[in-house]
Amino acid sequence: MNHFLSIHDVQDLNQLITSGIISKRNPFGDRKLGQDKTIGLLFFNSSLRTRLSTQKAAQNLGLNVLIMNVGQDGWGLEMEESLPGMPVVMDGANAEHVKEAAAVIGQYCDIIGIRSFAKLADQEKDYRELVFEQFKKYAGVPILNLESETRHPLQSLADCITIEEFKVKARPKVVLTWLPHFKALPQAVANSFCEWMNRMDVELVVTHPQGYELAPEFVGNAEVVYDQDKALEGADFVYGKNWSSFTNYGQVLVHDPSWMITEEKMARTDNGKFMHCLPVRRNVKVADEVLDGPRSLVIEQAANREWAAQAALKEILLGMQE
Amino acid sequence: MNHFLSIHDVQDLNQLITSGIISKRNPFGDRKLGQDKTIGLLFFNSSLRTRLSTQKAAQNLGLNVLIMNVGQDGWGLEMEESLPGMPVVMDGANAEHVKEAAAVIGQYCDIIGIRSFAKLADQEKDYRELVFEQFKKYAGVPILNLESETRHPLQSLADCITIEEFKVKARPKVVLTWLPHFKALPQAVANSFCEWMNRMDVELVVTHPQGYELAPEFVGNAEVVYDQDKALEGADFVYGKNWSSFTNYGQVLVHDPSWMITEEKMARTDNGKFMHCLPVRRNVKVADEVLDGPRSLVIEQAANREWAAQAALKEILLGMQE
Amino acid sequence: MNHFLSIHDVQDLNQLITSGIISKRNPFGDRKLGQDKTIGLLFFNSSLRTRLSTQKAAQNLGLNVLIMNVGQDGWGLEMEESLPGMPVVMDGANAEHVKEAAAVIGQYCDIIGIRSFAKLADQEKDYRELVFEQFKKYAGVPILNLESETRHPLQSLADCITIEEFKVKARPKVVLTWLPHFKALPQAVANSFCEWMNRMDVELVVTHPQGYELAPEFVGNAEVVYDQDKALEGADFVYGKNWSSFTNYGQVLVHDPSWMITEEKMARTDNGKFMHCLPVRRNVKVADEVLDGPRSLVIEQAANREWAAQAALKEILLGMQE
Repeated sequence: MNHFLSIHDVQDLNQLITSGIISKRNPFGDRKLGQDKTIGLLFFNSSLRTRLSTQKAAQNLGLNVLIMNVGQDGWGLEMEESLPGMPVVMDGANAEHVKEAAAVIGQYCDIIGIRSFAKLADQEKDYRELVFEQFKKYAGVPILNLESETRHPLQSLADCITIEEFKVKARPKVVLTWLPHFKALPQAVANSFCEWMNRMDVELVVTHPQGYELAPEFVGNAEVVYDQDKALEGADFVYGKNWSSFTNYGQVLVHDPSWMITEEKMARTDNGKFMHCLPVRRNVKVADEVLDGPRSLVIEQAANREWAAQAALKEILLGMQE
Repeated sequence: MNHFLSIHDVQDLNQLITSGIISKRNPFGDRKLGQDKTIGLLFFNSSLRTRLSTQKAAQNLGLNVLIMNVGQDGWGLEMEESLPGMPVVMDGANAEHVKEAAAVIGQYCDIIGIRSFAKLADQEKDYRELVFEQFKKYAGVPILNLESETRHPLQSLADCITIEEFKVKARPKVVLTWLPHFKALPQAVANSFCEWMNRMDVELVVTHPQGYELAPEFVGNAEVVYDQDKALEGADFVYGKNWSSFTNYGQVLVHDPSWMITEEKMARTDNGKFMHCLPVRRNVKVADEVLDGPRSLVIEQAANREWAAQAALKEILLGMQE
Repeated sequence: MNHFLSIHDVQDLNQLITSGIISKRNPFGDRKLGQDKTIGLLFFNSSLRTRLSTQKAAQNLGLNVLIMNVGQDGWGLEMEESLPGMPVVMDGANAEHVKEAAAVIGQYCDIIGIRSFAKLADQEKDYRELVFEQFKKYAGVPILNLESETRHPLQSLADCITIEEFKVKARPKVVLTWLPHFKALPQAVANSFCEWMNRMDVELVVTHPQGYELAPEFVGNAEVVYDQDKALEGADFVYGKNWSSFTNYGQVLVHDPSWMITEEKMARTDNGKFMHCLPVRRNVKVADEVLDGPRSLVIEQAANREWAAQAALKEILLGMQE
């Protein structure tokens, strides 16, 4: 079954990027592919870009779309399973078990998209991605990751498409930089970006304060530099993102405003472009001057979310025909 | 006008079951029936299966679907009407009267589906099903019951289809058993199940602790047995459900874990199948071993919700052509 | 670009009214107009009529519809922009700036409909209609007003269609009367109604207690009468609405029950019809006898919301072809 959960579900990244770019030029070229099929989009968390772009991409492909704000529209879901001799007794707030919910939704939907953020309380719990594991196990249909506890592959694919469109060197230097923020945010976008960049032909550098190291399996072969100024030198793309600590899990260790991206910082790059997945807090993470200036690709990135979703959905739908 | 509110709106149950099974085999065979027509789905309460399956069935029939979480998306609705000399003065929380709301929604929708649970505070109030009465009176279009204060006919029809598909005897023994639960739940599913089973060719037995007697108009000719073990003997289908007391209205009188359905209990049946409308609290109402074993039909039942909804909508749509 | 934000976006009101009436007779006549186009409907506030009628009209025109309850489904939006030397530092509750949100939604949608009520705390802030200004500035696509801080043009157009359908004189007398209410409501519907009536061939009279004067730019040439009984004399249409004070901004100055519309009041009219945008609080603003009697046009008005929306969307879509 063709799930789309991470880079590991992608055989040929270049082909996938090209597929997105083809859809961008001809959005309705594959309208027959989704005909008489239904995608269910389940949101455990807030969403703007993902909600709209995935819905749009699905409609471009002729799919019917069913949307649920889980918990709000339906019932709280129990995700944990009984262990031998230790039954999960459902006498708490959750009225429905994922075993039933996933299997039932799988009866109505040909594809299920899910958004479920990290709760940032328990590293092990978040990193085993229980919600996705359970839906994979019990839904019986392909699962599309609309941002999981540890990854955001549709964002990463949109980022790949954007870099492909705007790169002026064969092998651009791409710098993922941590940005300051007073709230604790998941590592998902940063993790995922590293994973996907490691498959593209780029020079990936990751920069962040001490204590903000990402999990090694995501960083891979990227160079880690603790000096932001040094990291930015000669960069073609600066990808900003805040994340909370992975090692001191979910904590905000520092909130150093000197890590905010400004024009002065961008001047160190090689006429570099600025990228961010949005939403972004202006003048906390990035200065107005950068977001409003010609270096910013944030809107182009967001627009490419539609084509990333369409490319992913095409893969899943083509996989159904095999 | 063809409402679909209870078994009393069904002329030929066998034909309706067959209609559902035909749609299951050929979901898009009646796609023209709903063309250029719109169904509005109004949810006063949470929903997963009903929301998704009704939406899906409507789309299979070519209907446009408009969905509202009433109260959350719109305004609180006043349901009570003025009596002679006693006007209802709307100076409270509800900003809109159902007289207007129903009539207005009836202008935009060809069919209106409504979910409104019993509040369990006032038996007389719940059992007169005011919300449905008012919409019937003022909407001017057919009303589809997505679970009312006292009934859940789309669930019951799905149950009939499931029993029809899985029965191995001409006249199976069907046991509706009360299940333990710490929360007070409505009687709607149990009421409705009795009503529909009384129209099918089955032997219906109802079992529950003293004090959990359902309203006589629903129980009809079913045998009531207070000894669960005895009731289960020789059963072909065990239909589990919790409900709060009808006579001591809305109260939880006992929460006796010995009423939970286990494999040991199921061993008393004649290789009986287990059914439940979902959501179900595992190891409170039913043990994992039953839900995860080959006896369980809960997913099949839920899948049949789509075909029950499609059969009901077909009836309504055909009624419009007369 | 063809926005639809107020009467000022309407070149020929008679033509627009006729367009709505034509759609009412033949709802699917322009189905090709919206094909392969998408409208996004953004709700910052509750909605029943607007939500359903706009969705319906859009579907009649073949448009795809994406709906968002902003804030609830997505992120809180920061609307204020930085001034020279005074950056807006987004360290509060709003996680996303409208600059990004509008531009992003404009990438996915060909038209954006927005509902954003007045907050009634700051007259200057409400009356500059910041949300709409920002979306106009940054979305890059036509904006449809689903009720702004100061106007409700789709309601007003529906009102025009209704008056056109029911008038029995060439130049009817139309009375906008303030109604009593204990809560503070925006002036939007009243403002908008005046603006549109001033463009129709009617005699417009506005009546309200002292202190409830509407902003002069909306009242225009209408006669203002503080004696409701006198104002109602000879009226063909009585348009009821509560609003809070504009001059003592957002305050409830009086809550005088003698301003409630009753049959006795209506007897002063020339067999006048009663209109209200809904929702209406019965026996607070209007007596049952009027709403339930033959004078009431409130349901007809609400039904015409579909055709008003369709006429407005047609204008926008035709504007795209130029």
